[in-house]
Amino acid sequence: MAVALDAMGGDHGPAVLVEGAVEAAREFGTAIVLVGEEEVLAAELDRQGGASLPIEIHHASQVVGMDESPAESLRRKKDSTIKVAFDLVKRGDASAVVSAGNSGATLATALVTLGRFSGVRPAIATVMPTLKEPAVMIDVGANVDCKPHHLLQFGVMGAVFSSEFLGIENPAVGILSIGEEDSKGNQQVKRAHDLFHGTSLNFVGNVEGREVFRGDVNVIVCDGFVGNICLKLSEGLAESILLMLKSELSSSPMASMGYLLAKGAFRRFKKRVDYSEYGGAPLLGTKGVAIICHGRSGAKAIKNAVRVASGLAASDLLGKLKEALGRYEDLYK
Amino acid sequence: MAVALDAMGGDHGPAVLVEGAVEAAREFGTAIVLVGEEEVLAAELDRQGGASLPIEIHHASQVVGMDESPAESLRRKKDSTIKVAFDLVKRGDASAVVSAGNSGATLATALVTLGRFSGVRPAIATVMPTLKEPAVMIDVGANVDCKPHHLLQFGVMGAVFSSEFLGIENPAVGILSIGEEDSKGNQQVKRAHDLFHGTSLNFVGNVEGREVFRGDVNVIVCDGFVGNICLKLSEGLAESILLMLKSELSSSPMASMGYLLAKGAFRRFKKRVDYSEYGGAPLLGTKGVAIICHGRSGAKAIKNAVRVASGLAASDLLGKLKEALGRYEDLYK
Repeated sequence: MAVALDAMGGDHGPAVLVEGAVEAAREFGTAIVLVGEEEVLAAELDRQGGASLPIEIHHASQVVGMDESPAESLRRKKDSTIKVAFDLVKRGDASAVVSAGNSGATLATALVTLGRFSGVRPAIATVMPTLKEPAVMIDVGANVDCKPHHLLQFGVMGAVFSSEFLGIENPAVGILSIGEEDSKGNQQVKRAHDLFHGTSLNFVGNVEGREVFRGDVNVIVCDGFVGNICLKLSEGLAESILLMLKSELSSSPMASMGYLLAKGAFRRFKKRVDYSEYGGAPLLGTKGVAIICHGRSGAKAIKNAVRVASGLAASDLLGKLKEALGRYEDLYK
Repeated sequence: MAVALDAMGGDHGPAVLVEGAVEAAREFGTAIVLVGEEEVLAAELDRQGGASLPIEIHHASQVVGMDESPAESLRRKKDSTIKVAFDLVKRGDASAVVSAGNSGATLATALVTLGRFSGVRPAIATVMPTLKEPAVMIDVGANVDCKPHHLLQFGVMGAVFSSEFLGIENPAVGILSIGEEDSKGNQQVKRAHDLFHGTSLNFVGNVEGREVFRGDVNVIVCDGFVGNICLKLSEGLAESILLMLKSELSSSPMASMGYLLAKGAFRRFKKRVDYSEYGGAPLLGTKGVAIICHGRSGAKAIKNAVRVASGLAASDLLGKLKEALGRYEDLYK
């Protein structure tokens, strides 16, 4: 079944989104439904030589602005690309949604249209590069004020995702906190420890900020406020470091020459720290697959997000999430 | 007046701490009191050729272990290096304390021995490198569960420190949060906005994680849980990036040659992202100057922390903090 792509959202507009779709269809053979202004998308698809690929267009007349209120957009824009994309999944006409549009609206629309597992707070998971296997951080922005039992749900969902998507057996799950001992952390974290100890998860206790990128912990649990700050801080720092390095490397002829010689190494290095390799961030806990992408996603990130969405929809992710969450219902209901 | 250095704390032991002291005394002429085992320190000082420098030794018979409970250490170890160092400041025999020992114990001992400004929660400030001027992040670990009015105090203190220490006029103060608009963030942050708007601080609203390293905001306010995670995450990421880069640069003869040519550029780059250039993190809000260093501080970090401590003690930091905090007393009392 096709992946529904919100083809109007994001910072770069339809050209880049269609480009990502065309690349995904071409490279992976993924079937895609572009959702948005029919004429615009048809012209774009044609221009990019995608006519013969398994890409369809589904018209939607409205677009939710990047700064628009999610609640308002849900009330007023019944024919928005985001709403129409989720309706396609709801009706069984698409397998998953990918959107680089207004992420608050994507989240709200997913909750309303797809629904959530009973008693569960859906959360956004993200895959982070580390020195070893990539790690999953959850939640990175869906829930800003959380209770300890929500952290438990995030851990359960993150572990399922880590196994299903990254193939990690019995992933190590830790809570992002400010010391190694169970006694370190804020009230929320300390109470969550007791809940986690009551599960059969491979719970390793607290994870400090320093350890995130070492890769020894596979699932890093935090509330959406902390997680979103960490995600964006990491992106900003990685970018700043590359900028500083670049400015130093162009500061003298000898350094520039060295850079030229080592260019292949730099390219591999950039690929290792590049978030867009992993596509977008899946929303876990709703009764359907949705991938939330950065507004500034380029074609490569969209291509990878479409691939991930298609793979997750074809896997038994939803069934496994439901089962795992069900196992610990008495801890959070 | 001399700076009191806890000469037994930290991961590396007295040799490295004395080395930092010797370098500070030699380079900056700073007077220092080494606090700890008299015989050990005298031998170390002699071995390092520091006998003729303005360095004295003050005996203390106990050391607080890195994992020891701060409360317990305060109760039981009346002659610990940390306690004795703060007693020296309290009595007017030293101007400031520098410790790379147990930071919880350093914090607790500072509160008990020096006291705090009335109604104020002391906080740890740290200086972070950015693409422009260094920024101040506060609190990075003293207070894990905060009320909105504590964030206000952190902002007031951070602004004074930014002006006094970094020489930034009318520093821009922002709250670390997950969106630009005032309406974005958790409950704690949203309520803090109202308080900040009632001050004459140069308050710029929310700062997202991505913006921290751009350097447009001079003071970044957060609770100690979020701040400590961000600080350690940043350090861990910077380290991981350097490791990944190193491994790529040694992966082929051509890349290695390029690295050799660009070595000077790499050295300048490492210096730019190196936290130890700024020494330790000052504790603000107590009635005395204390600098908390990383347990793993090397001699350079200690040297710089001693320099910073001496400079802050000689400045009117405490007077200015008291005055600024007093100005907004009705907002937090």
